[in-house]
Formats: sequence, C-alpha cells, structure tokens
Amino acid sequence: MSETPLDLALDGPALTARLVDFPSVSGEEKPLADAIEQALRALPHLTVDRYGNNVVARTELGRSERVVLAGHIDTVPIADNVPSRLDDGVLWGCGTSDMKSGVAVQLRIAATVPEPNRDLTFVFYDNEEVAADLNGLGHVAAAHPDWLAGDFAVLLEPSDGEVEGGCQGTLRVLLRTTGERAHSARSWMGSNAIHAATPILQRLAAYEPRRPVIDGLEFHEGLNAVRIEGGVATNVIPDACTVVVNYRYAPDLTEEEALAHVHEVFEGCGVAEFVVDDHSGAALPGLSHPAAAAFMAAVGGKARPKFGWTDVARFSALGVPAVNYGPGNPLLAHKRDERVAVERITHCEERLREWLTR
Amino acid sequence: MSETPLDLALDGPALTARLVDFPSVSGEEKPLADAIEQALRALPHLTVDRYGNNVVARTELGRSERVVLAGHIDTVPIADNVPSRLDDGVLWGCGTSDMKSGVAVQLRIAATVPEPNRDLTFVFYDNEEVAADLNGLGHVAAAHPDWLAGDFAVLLEPSDGEVEGGCQGTLRVLLRTTGERAHSARSWMGSNAIHAATPILQRLAAYEPRRPVIDGLEFHEGLNAVRIEGGVATNVIPDACTVVVNYRYAPDLTEEEALAHVHEVFEGCGVAEFVVDDHSGAALPGLSHPAAAAFMAAVGGKARPKFGWTDVARFSALGVPAVNYGPGNPLLAHKRDERVAVERITHCEERLREWLTR
Repeated sequence: MSETPLDLALDGPALTARLVDFPSVSGEEKPLADAIEQALRALPHLTVDRYGNNVVARTELGRSERVVLAGHIDTVPIADNVPSRLDDGVLWGCGTSDMKSGVAVQLRIAATVPEPNRDLTFVFYDNEEVAADLNGLGHVAAAHPDWLAGDFAVLLEPSDGEVEGGCQGTLRVLLRTTGERAHSARSWMGSNAIHAATPILQRLAAYEPRRPVIDGLEFHEGLNAVRIEGGVATNVIPDACTVVVNYRYAPDLTEEEALAHVHEVFEGCGVAEFVVDDHSGAALPGLSHPAAAAFMAAVGGKARPKFGWTDVARFSALGVPAVNYGPGNPLLAHKRDERVAVERITHCEERLREWLTR
Repeated sequence: MSETPLDLALDGPALTARLVDFPSVSGEEKPLADAIEQALRALPHLTVDRYGNNVVARTELGRSERVVLAGHIDTVPIADNVPSRLDDGVLWGCGTSDMKSGVAVQLRIAATVPEPNRDLTFVFYDNEEVAADLNGLGHVAAAHPDWLAGDFAVLLEPSDGEVEGGCQGTLRVLLRTTGERAHSARSWMGSNAIHAATPILQRLAAYEPRRPVIDGLEFHEGLNAVRIEGGVATNVIPDACTVVVNYRYAPDLTEEEALAHVHEVFEGCGVAEFVVDDHSGAALPGLSHPAAAAFMAAVGGKARPKFGWTDVARFSALGVPAVNYGPGNPLLAHKRDERVAVERITHCEERLREWLTR
C-alpha cells in the first residue's frame, strides 16, 4: 500500500477533516478501505478482517459482553464541497455529517481504548448510499454473520447527538384491480377497473395508524398509496388499475404479521392481484438490554424512535439490537452545504469512551 | 388532369371496386379528389366547388328542401388488401366498408338523379381517419359553412344498412387533487393526494347514467374514469393525483349543460383543479324533420341511436340534423379482412334513389 496511512493520533475533528479530504463516493471506497485497514492493522489489540471494501476489527478480551460500532465509509457524490473547510468551530464538506465524523469517532475509539470494559467490534462498510443490494453491511451479514455478532450495536449515522432506537419496517405491495375494456361511448359493455379501486382508496383514507410504545419509544405507523396507475386510452374503459401501497410498521410486528395485516385491511376490496413488491423488516430498539441501558446512561438524553428504515435492521435481523447515535446532523446529510459542529464530534467520542471504560 | 376519370356509369359495386383500387390513405387523397372533381364537373346539373382535397357539388333547382349526402374519401393504411377482390357476392379490400361503398353510392346518386325532389348537396372530404383537427369536413365547415347548408344530412358511414341517429357528446376533464409531500416513513408530516381522490372515485362508482329517449331513440350516457395517475416515488407521500374523466352525454344537453353537470357531480369532492381537456358536442337525431321522416319511410327499419361521437355532430353544430346510413359494416372497418356485401351497396343506392325521386 502506497497511500499515506491515516494518522489516528489526530483528534476527532482533525481526523474527520482528513477523511473528508479522502474522497470515497459509493463505488470508489477502495483507497479509503485500504487506509483504514492499514491503520487498524497497526493496532496490536485488534484482530482485523476484510471482505471486499469492508473492514472489521475486533478486540478479543473475553469480556462478558460485546458491542459493535458500525459506520459506512462511502458518501454521496461530491458537490464542489471537497476539500473540507474549518470555519469558526464548524467543519464543512461532503460527508462531514453523513458520516465521516462518525467514522472518525469509531477510529478514535479503536485507537485509544485498548482495554474496553466490553469487547468491541468495529465495522467499516461500503455502498450504503446506493441500492440496497450493494450495501456492504448486507454483504458481510450474508458472508460472515459471525463477524457482526454482539449484544448491542451502535451505528454512528448522523442523529444530531440523540439516540434513535430501532426502526420501522417497510412493506410495499401492488394491489391490482381488473375490469373489461369497452369503448367509453358504450361503457356499459365493459367494466371499469379504476372504479373498482374505490374500496381500496376508501380503506386507505379511513385507516387509523397505530402508535405503539416499544421499549419506551412511541413509534408511528403509516399505510399509504404511494402510486396509482390505470388507463388504456382516453376513449377506452380501463381493464386494469394498480395501487402501490407502502406500509411502514412498528417493530412489534414480524414481517409475516405485517403482511397478514395488509391482507386483512384490503379483504373484500375486490383486489384481483396482491403482489409483494418489497419488504424490509423492522428493528427492535433493544434498549432494555443491559449494554443498551449502560449506553443510555453514558450518553444521556432520551432515546427517540427511528421511523425510516435503516441499517440497524440488518443487525436486528442477526439478533443484535441496535441504535443510531452519531455526531452528524441528519438534516444536513446529502446537501451541498453539509457540515458538522466540531464540538459534536468531540462530545460523541467522549460519551462513547465513558461508556466503554468506566 | 391526366388521371383516367371515374366512370360513373359503372354500377355501385363496380364503382366501389374502382374506388378501392384507387388508394387514398389519409393525407394522400389528392389524386382521388381530382378524379371525383373531374367526374362531377362532367355532370351539367351540378355546381362544383373545391377546398383543399374536399369536393362539394350541388343541384340548384330551387326545391323547398335541401339534403346533404356526405362521405370521407380517405382510408386507414392499406394492409395487403388492395386491389379489391370480388368473391361470391362479397367485395374485399381496404375501404370497402369504411367507406368507399358509401362514396360510390353518393357518386351514383349524383350521376343518375339529375332532377331530385329535394335539392342535393354532395360532400366528399379528406382526413377523417386521423386527428380531428385535420378533418376535411371540419375545414369546410370553418371556411365555407354555406356549402354545407341543408335541412337534413346523411353520412354514408358504415352502419350495416341501419339508420343511426345523432350522436352523443364527449367531454373529457382532468380532476386534480393535491397534498403535501413527506417521506412515507413519516406520512403524518404530509397529506396524501391519492387518498384525497377517494371521493371522486366514490362518485364515479355510484353514478347512475341517464338513458333519455330523444326523437324516439334511447341514448345511454356514461361517466367514467379513463385514466388515473399519481405518485412521486415509492417512499414519498404524493402531493398530486389526476383522474381523467370522460362524460358521454345524450344530445338533449348542450355543451354548457354537460359541463355544468360534471361540475355538479364532483362538487364537494375536494377537486383542486378542474381542467376541460377536450369537448365535442352531441348531435340531435332530427328525425322529426319532414325530410328525415320521408327518409325513414324510404329506407325502412327502425333508427337506433349513435353512441359514439361522429361527424354528424359537425352538421348538427351548423344546425343541420344528421344521421349515419351506409352500406358498409362498422364491425369490419379498419380490419385487414375488410369487406362489403355487394347486395348492400345496391340496396342502399336504391333506397336513397326512392327517397329522392318519388
């Protein structure tokens, strides 16, 4: 490797700046993965594995608990916002919030906590900002699930310093109605598939979403048409209509239960075809686990639920409860004026160190 | 003109065959229009006018009534079905039914009835099989409405030897609903425009169309969604949805009344935008007019209503009641195996001659 290795003696903000100045747009992570691997291999207390451009490092101290600190190393495309720029306590640049500040904190903990009170696993993965099937964490979970084993996981995604627990599941189904074509001047000769979709929309419009409290977090479900499409020509009674429905559900439902619920909602609506188009299960916050409770005590504040689907669900699927907790600001992610307050980076690193050492 | 003129001494079926063998796909009618003009100018009892590829010929006998016999001279594209072929009393070929057999009857009446009991106007027009704005009858109506004046009009469109009276109007409106975008994981932050279309579909599904009897003909209206479209992305609450509605209405309604009715149907449905996309008025059958009554007596049978919009409405808009009556079979129009029974051609010509001479 000819790259200058990352200097893990830099403080969190300076290391973040160094990472931002090391472009790693999705699909082009190899140089950064190489540098991270090289830096970690230099630390004698860690065992390092690599799979593609994903790097996993572990302590093997025989502690009774193991926690995972994970983060993606890719960014969305650069938008005239590299190199980074530090201005009055704020670091500007692509990936400052999402999530090279989080990766910097991971690397700082890896370098400065050689004897943690819990065994640690550090996961650095690629392709989080692109199609789900490219996601490096998914690839590691499929090929080496044992590398991700643990009692609790923290993803250092931007969460503005608050803890976001679990995530809701997302199920997308296509509901198709059928009819019979006819010239619209003789509509009684046919049967209108768009009209046949009326009961589906009625159920959707009348639907009362649940707001269950799980592990102390109030989730908020939703059942919505996200697309509707029907029609052959402006003088033809349509024989087909499709309503695309998205169900966002709380983590007290399994994938099977969520699917059964949607079937039940649209029972008797004259749906001719019911197609599951996409399904990603929910993730429990797992805040009742002792490691999570200690984590909450160390970072302080009150956890809030995560409504959108995130990579914590990949840990949940492996039986590892997970939360998002990172120094970035999610509202600034993917923006041209992406930035992070350097104080947040230092704060996040200190809170994690406190949790893992006291 | 170098073209061999049409020989109007041929009988109806033979003249139909000659016309079919004279290709005149929409946009390429000039040679046929030239031949028709030349043949008509050879008849001393007719005054001939021309506008583009539209030819109008008239008797000027000072009769108390004037009737119009009209037909389009274009066809849909040829589909290996030219030249024509006569087989066991059936003439096969492009345009045999739609509507060169009708044009042959017009030409035969023009040539063989020099002293009709009613003044006659013969209209031969182009571009009926293509976009409405190209329609030759529409062009003549706009430029020379006086050429189309009369008490009653017969379009020799294929009607299988039955009289089809008037036509229904057709109104197309776009009904738009709006909402507010939000991530579908936080749907309560937005407002779903597809769900907002529910009352529109409910009204459509519950709509009871009228079947008014006009001039003895029972019409049959229809109000239908012919297209629906909404959606931004599968993870976004949609902020817009459009339902395209087609109202086919009986000729006891004016265009204004039809539009007012549709406004009324969807009142209180939360329609954010109401756009008239297309509107063509209905045509009264006018069967109570003395010329029409005499026509019905001569051709026999019972008139039926025309549900689809046709060029009779262009006459109706000029104050001329009109019917479709022709030898072709509408079910065979535009087909590769298009054909006409020669007996139908002779029968139609005889009935019209009887009406115009006795």
